[in-house]
Amino acid sequence: MGFGKAVIAQGGGPTAVINHSLTGAIFEILRGGDVDAVYGAVHGVEGIANENFIDLSHTPTDMLNRIASTTGSALGSTRDKPDENYCAQMFDVLRAHDVRKFYYIGGNDSADTCRIVSQQAESVGYDLKVTHIPKTVDNDLLVNDHTPGFGSAAKFVSHAFAGADMDNRSLPGIYLGVVMGRDAGFLTAASALGCSNHRESPLLVYIPEFAFDTDRFLAQIEETYARFGRCMIAVSEGIRGADGTPILAQLYKDIDRDPHGNYQLSGNGQLADSLASLIKNTVKAKVRADTFGYIQRSFAGAVSAVDAHEACAVAEAAVQFSRQKEFRSGSAAIIRTGEYSVEYQLTTLESVARSTKSMAPEFYDCASAKITESFLNYAKPLIDTLPHCTILNGEPVPQLLRKKSYL
Amino acid sequence: MGFGKAVIAQGGGPTAVINHSLTGAIFEILRGGDVDAVYGAVHGVEGIANENFIDLSHTPTDMLNRIASTTGSALGSTRDKPDENYCAQMFDVLRAHDVRKFYYIGGNDSADTCRIVSQQAESVGYDLKVTHIPKTVDNDLLVNDHTPGFGSAAKFVSHAFAGADMDNRSLPGIYLGVVMGRDAGFLTAASALGCSNHRESPLLVYIPEFAFDTDRFLAQIEETYARFGRCMIAVSEGIRGADGTPILAQLYKDIDRDPHGNYQLSGNGQLADSLASLIKNTVKAKVRADTFGYIQRSFAGAVSAVDAHEACAVAEAAVQFSRQKEFRSGSAAIIRTGEYSVEYQLTTLESVARSTKSMAPEFYDCASAKITESFLNYAKPLIDTLPHCTILNGEPVPQLLRKKSYL
Repeated sequence: MGFGKAVIAQGGGPTAVINHSLTGAIFEILRGGDVDAVYGAVHGVEGIANENFIDLSHTPTDMLNRIASTTGSALGSTRDKPDENYCAQMFDVLRAHDVRKFYYIGGNDSADTCRIVSQQAESVGYDLKVTHIPKTVDNDLLVNDHTPGFGSAAKFVSHAFAGADMDNRSLPGIYLGVVMGRDAGFLTAASALGCSNHRESPLLVYIPEFAFDTDRFLAQIEETYARFGRCMIAVSEGIRGADGTPILAQLYKDIDRDPHGNYQLSGNGQLADSLASLIKNTVKAKVRADTFGYIQRSFAGAVSAVDAHEACAVAEAAVQFSRQKEFRSGSAAIIRTGEYSVEYQLTTLESVARSTKSMAPEFYDCASAKITESFLNYAKPLIDTLPHCTILNGEPVPQLLRKKSYL
Repeated sequence: MGFGKAVIAQGGGPTAVINHSLTGAIFEILRGGDVDAVYGAVHGVEGIANENFIDLSHTPTDMLNRIASTTGSALGSTRDKPDENYCAQMFDVLRAHDVRKFYYIGGNDSADTCRIVSQQAESVGYDLKVTHIPKTVDNDLLVNDHTPGFGSAAKFVSHAFAGADMDNRSLPGIYLGVVMGRDAGFLTAASALGCSNHRESPLLVYIPEFAFDTDRFLAQIEETYARFGRCMIAVSEGIRGADGTPILAQLYKDIDRDPHGNYQLSGNGQLADSLASLIKNTVKAKVRADTFGYIQRSFAGAVSAVDAHEACAVAEAAVQFSRQKEFRSGSAAIIRTGEYSVEYQLTTLESVARSTKSMAPEFYDCASAKITESFLNYAKPLIDTLPHCTILNGEPVPQLLRKKSYL
């Protein structure tokens, strides 16, 4: 004994593969033989402040494997962002248990939590190594080529749009799906993976990175519907006007905010229903609007194998980085090194905290509301099984009656 | 030459496996060697009336196989219900092409179309054999133990609820999901397959077969939330008040109706959002509401293998029944013969047309809003891969600080 303990926790929105990161980190921490125990904090930093731990040091391998393939955050999550007092309470608890390493799996808000905790620990002279392990279905962490959780959510969205496209082809009309994505359009762009031959498809895509213009939106739908006799539309929940305010917040003044001050964009159908009303007033067509909601981030039946493997591997790498001499704090990032290969690099917490990554300009053509080939090439390797749809192109039967009537 | 031709078409809402029925029927029709050609009517009976056919007699096997595993209705669908004049126009076209057999894949409205077409053909002395092939995600066709399309949609719903349940466990609150089901609660009941240990789970289920009582609904949520610290709710889109009017139609006077006079319940988030508002006014908790929408019936990534096989087999059986001497019209039905085995029986169009099947009384406990073991046993064999979720039950770490403060 005398190594000190490690605490691991999960923050922010769950994903389909976040438990692969949890168990990947636990296996690697235990393999190191350099901690006295691994504790899991229940519901993230809240569990630390409340001294709510479970001991994971002797959890059977089989249970950890089964936890890995369960969606959601097995330890529970939180959206708490600690301030100085919160940190002081956490440090009282962590010191009492002789905790010297803290691993936190989450997105950019959780990376920011790590940054705050690490700074506060340093300022009070507490030797705590703080490691952030990336995850977010939004795919908007800086430095990273992509993030664990995105591949599985993108797989869900691509299969959902593939199905909705075939459904819409069966009973033509206008279909609109609202996809998660507060600041970044990556997940919404995955809709294009489900609608094959994307240039010639009736799919229009609207993402938060480009100001949403209602008139252009309606004109593009009208044009597409006239051309194809149907129209598919993918919209990010976070689309915003030229002034930066989310369209949903413009339409509904009373929407909730989370503790980080973010608008609560998911968990209702208001954006989809409002856009559907706008469309109905402009185009004479059957309009159906779905909001993909929470299903897309934790659907238990569409996990991408690539995503699951990387979620485990990046957590393992993060634990290895945290063993480096002089390591104080940092985050593990996924870097693409080939088509398709990745490596994991250590980066600073500051480099991934708070700010978000946007879709590369070459991924989206704003003028036509189309996702580009470049995005498809980027995203395809992250999904193990792309949807495949075949269109029945039979031989048209010559018309006997109409011919007759034209004679 | 001289056998006459067969026409096949698809009606009503698409499913994930309706093309397995299409291709299963085509293979069997062609194998019989007793038709001159198989034509597909584009967009159901509408394609017949408009003389819009494609010749499927020489479609490559590989293409048919790929069509089978594509969701949606490959031939296009329609919600048209023919009357006498419509039938007369259809018969002009069918006679011009020497069509003597008509196969229609659809639900109870399509079965009713078959009934009308067959009656009209008989009354005008046109020798047309009319065969209905069952499909509906609603699982509400009479005579049938279950219907093709249900297993895959139930698989989607069970995996969606499994994921949503893990998500809700991570960040506790109240989650409500609105599931398809105008008259029958089968698909909504499949939510219980995703929430393991259903008696002890925080899942409440509301289906159209039992009058929806808002006060009881809110009381049950309040009680569940108090007990579990969270609550999961599955609601059929078709839930109705004691007078039989859908709750959605009570809340919104202007909702659309389809050509059959049915309320358009899917394609918006209104029911989920209204119920969420009601809950928010009663229980102080985070409330999130999703509407599963069109995704659940045609999701390209969660097809049940059992469902796909049966969709093919029941269509094959239907074609075989239609070769029986004296056959005029009929439908093929799926009958369960063991745990788990099925056989296919010929039944009359009248027995499956229009009326709908309800959940068996032993499948649902209205007083507790719980799905019973009996339903789970009924539904499990129809889904090839049930969601599996493992709960992390670690050893709680004794509290050092709180202990101290209690001393």
